[in-house]
Amino acid sequence: MSQTLDQFKEYLHKMKQYEHVLTLLYWDLQTLTPEKGVEAHMSAITYFSSESFRLSTADEYGQMLRTLSEPEEFDALDEAMQLTVRRYSRDYERFKRVPADFFADYTETKARSEKAWEKAKRSADFDQFAPYLEKVISMTKEYVHYMEPDEDPYEVLLDMYEEGIDGDTIDRVFEELKEGLLPLLAKIEARPRPDLSALEGSYDIAAQKKVQQMLLEYIGFDADAGATAESEHPFTTELCIGDVRVTNHYKENDPISAIFSAIHEGGHAIFGQNVDPAYEDTAAGQVNLMGLHESQSRFFENILGRRRSFWVPIYDRLGEILPQFKEVPLDTFYRAINDVHPSMIRTEADEVTYCLHIILRYEMEKAIFRDNVPVSDLPQLWNDKMEELLGIRPANDGEGILQDMHWSDGSFGYFPSYLLGSMYDGMFLEALEKEKGSVDAILEDGRIREITAWLNENIHRHGSLYTSSEVLRRVCKKELSARPLLDYFYQKYENLD
Amino acid sequence: MSQTLDQFKEYLHKMKQYEHVLTLLYWDLQTLTPEKGVEAHMSAITYFSSESFRLSTADEYGQMLRTLSEPEEFDALDEAMQLTVRRYSRDYERFKRVPADFFADYTETKARSEKAWEKAKRSADFDQFAPYLEKVISMTKEYVHYMEPDEDPYEVLLDMYEEGIDGDTIDRVFEELKEGLLPLLAKIEARPRPDLSALEGSYDIAAQKKVQQMLLEYIGFDADAGATAESEHPFTTELCIGDVRVTNHYKENDPISAIFSAIHEGGHAIFGQNVDPAYEDTAAGQVNLMGLHESQSRFFENILGRRRSFWVPIYDRLGEILPQFKEVPLDTFYRAINDVHPSMIRTEADEVTYCLHIILRYEMEKAIFRDNVPVSDLPQLWNDKMEELLGIRPANDGEGILQDMHWSDGSFGYFPSYLLGSMYDGMFLEALEKEKGSVDAILEDGRIREITAWLNENIHRHGSLYTSSEVLRRVCKKELSARPLLDYFYQKYENLD
Repeated sequence: MSQTLDQFKEYLHKMKQYEHVLTLLYWDLQTLTPEKGVEAHMSAITYFSSESFRLSTADEYGQMLRTLSEPEEFDALDEAMQLTVRRYSRDYERFKRVPADFFADYTETKARSEKAWEKAKRSADFDQFAPYLEKVISMTKEYVHYMEPDEDPYEVLLDMYEEGIDGDTIDRVFEELKEGLLPLLAKIEARPRPDLSALEGSYDIAAQKKVQQMLLEYIGFDADAGATAESEHPFTTELCIGDVRVTNHYKENDPISAIFSAIHEGGHAIFGQNVDPAYEDTAAGQVNLMGLHESQSRFFENILGRRRSFWVPIYDRLGEILPQFKEVPLDTFYRAINDVHPSMIRTEADEVTYCLHIILRYEMEKAIFRDNVPVSDLPQLWNDKMEELLGIRPANDGEGILQDMHWSDGSFGYFPSYLLGSMYDGMFLEALEKEKGSVDAILEDGRIREITAWLNENIHRHGSLYTSSEVLRRVCKKELSARPLLDYFYQKYENLD
Repeated sequence: MSQTLDQFKEYLHKMKQYEHVLTLLYWDLQTLTPEKGVEAHMSAITYFSSESFRLSTADEYGQMLRTLSEPEEFDALDEAMQLTVRRYSRDYERFKRVPADFFADYTETKARSEKAWEKAKRSADFDQFAPYLEKVISMTKEYVHYMEPDEDPYEVLLDMYEEGIDGDTIDRVFEELKEGLLPLLAKIEARPRPDLSALEGSYDIAAQKKVQQMLLEYIGFDADAGATAESEHPFTTELCIGDVRVTNHYKENDPISAIFSAIHEGGHAIFGQNVDPAYEDTAAGQVNLMGLHESQSRFFENILGRRRSFWVPIYDRLGEILPQFKEVPLDTFYRAINDVHPSMIRTEADEVTYCLHIILRYEMEKAIFRDNVPVSDLPQLWNDKMEELLGIRPANDGEGILQDMHWSDGSFGYFPSYLLGSMYDGMFLEALEKEKGSVDAILEDGRIREITAWLNENIHRHGSLYTSSEVLRRVCKKELSARPLLDYFYQKYENLD
């Protein structure tokens, strides 16, 4: 091993320490930090973000990257280290172009904007949030322009969350999906909705937590390599491969919400826990490809979790923990968890209309970054698009443009990942059934861990080593298409009554 | 304000960031980190401890301290900043004498020893732990010798946890207490123990957590400036004045344990939450005087919490949350929580025999640091002292020398703080009743917050600004004595049947 490689690995390990505490600080902020502790917590986040930024723009680091990029050094590296040198060299060059003061200012602006968004959302008052959003948008544009002065800013953002999938590709597959989806939705809409009254009632929160534990264990979450907590919005966070944590949010009158959040976040976590430990400090061990990541959470949540067969082996167990379910026949439950109808809130949407929620956000982001639509026009644009795509119009901005936190913290370009993930899922499902036979047969038999193992082997262990397009080629031998997802939807919903 | 003072405050704020993440890392390690995440977590702790050590021994920091120590600068400082400059100058000189490599090695040794202790305790196998303990003892001696080469190492340790109370003082008041306590204990022992069978049963853990919330709120814990979690052993941790957290440990067959841990840790937390916010980054805002700190937790737990009058206003509420208590008369409960009898485990001991547990540990520490008793002889010495002081002999080292974690992580000199705290409590009680009248009358009336406010005003708000001796002089107008605590014990237990 070259001396530079040694030094580089040591340096990566040092950078990892900053990531570790930053991840922990964010985790704690969202799960436990009390109101009066937020300021001190934010001050630590700002400080260590700057330190981390300093490390990732240090001259000695740049020198190591340049040395390792020279052919004789580079060719001797293993695949994960080659990816690391390549990606981190690009990031280094990008970050070097961002002034440190600007970066600190941007970090703080995003944090303040997030807080302002929380308040504005609670009071459904967009005007309160507008100046913050305006600043985050302009600073994000500036940030991206520093990083890649010659590229289209929105393309840079898209690439940050899902490397290798560009705007043209997204336009193509989203259009393909929309075309296919609207007629199906019209058909579903023409039928009466299922009767959900059997599920009404009050569900003990402590018991709902036990359901989460049961589900996580069932699908293959490793409790020795993870933890659970509560937060306003469910999320997954990875401190390292041996420590991947999920949160949930419980509602007394709605057990379904926490059930599917548990499965969704469990899917993310199972991905994170099964990455090859050799990738720990490298780019291959980082959470990088958000579309691929969402494909795993959504595969567990939707492709598996919303099947009748998923519940056959464990529906009695659910009834033992939450006795109300003893009174609800499995068929009624199955219909309830597949109740497709247009609604206002993305995170509560069914798996079909969810796609349209994402298409709306993608179109909004293009309007913001390409057409420079002023912030004051955004709420109406949102509402118009809701009407166009879903046939409903928000009564206020709380259930409209203020519903998601993503834009408040500058995560523009993230939204498409959710839908890309679902499209990958359609393709993964096809590949899985080709190799292992009927998913329903496997699930009904209680052999879900065979599916988890297949995902571990084909997807998870590689971490971020391959881009999503490469993964699709390796696993499905195909290029990205909306077709398999549409096939799945049609097969499931065309005749569901 | 002088330029150096500005720089110094900025530097303190920077050091605070490292403390913040280290506190958070330890908190998380003890409340949430899963098994497979421990190594990565420890590696972050080691890294940031070293960085923090580097900051507190940096030349520029030393230069600032020297400048601010010059009379014209020093005299212009406020009281908290004078304390800070004085104490941090001493620490700086001390730390400068400790080689950085040794410090990193010591930090890691303590962490490994703590893990080894956990395992050894579970299997009650002292031999497993002995080599670690030996190393921690010798490294602690070395550490202290680096810091203060000319002083008695155990005096330095005592002073680290309770500045201004030396070994002679402790010898004097511990002896005074022992003399007074043994006859009382003999009297109590001669009477039959109360019948505790009414409390037997299984107590829902979720409900026990609700009891904790109720008690914390009742005594004055500010939920907006704190958080709660579970851990193997209850503890309190302070991230900042606005974020003071407590843990608890629940046993299904013993609700009393979690109840008094809740009150105890709540007492610590109320201290931390009520320190003057102006002291945030200064030495006056740090948790420094452990005896004073334990006096506050033990005041709430014992002086208040184990009174009948404490429970009068809330006993019905307890029964509403844990219905089993509806069947237990308050008098039975009162007797149960004041069941004095010798037992093996310090943390489960009643408030009277607890004192003897501490005296034993103090004598053990003197044997280790002054008489250099070899580690292999310590278990027997422990058992002999148990027999001498409490009349019982451990059946194994799990319920003997292995029971506490303190020595495993090098916290020699900490134990006396618990008993010093109780002695301060005797004195505080006297002063409080002199000023506010009968504590029983106040408690019975549900006006406990008046007592909390008295403690806030007289003790908490000053943080670590005054040493415990100074606090006793200010609040009680007296020097430290065991007499008031003995008076309290005699008054309470001499005729309790």
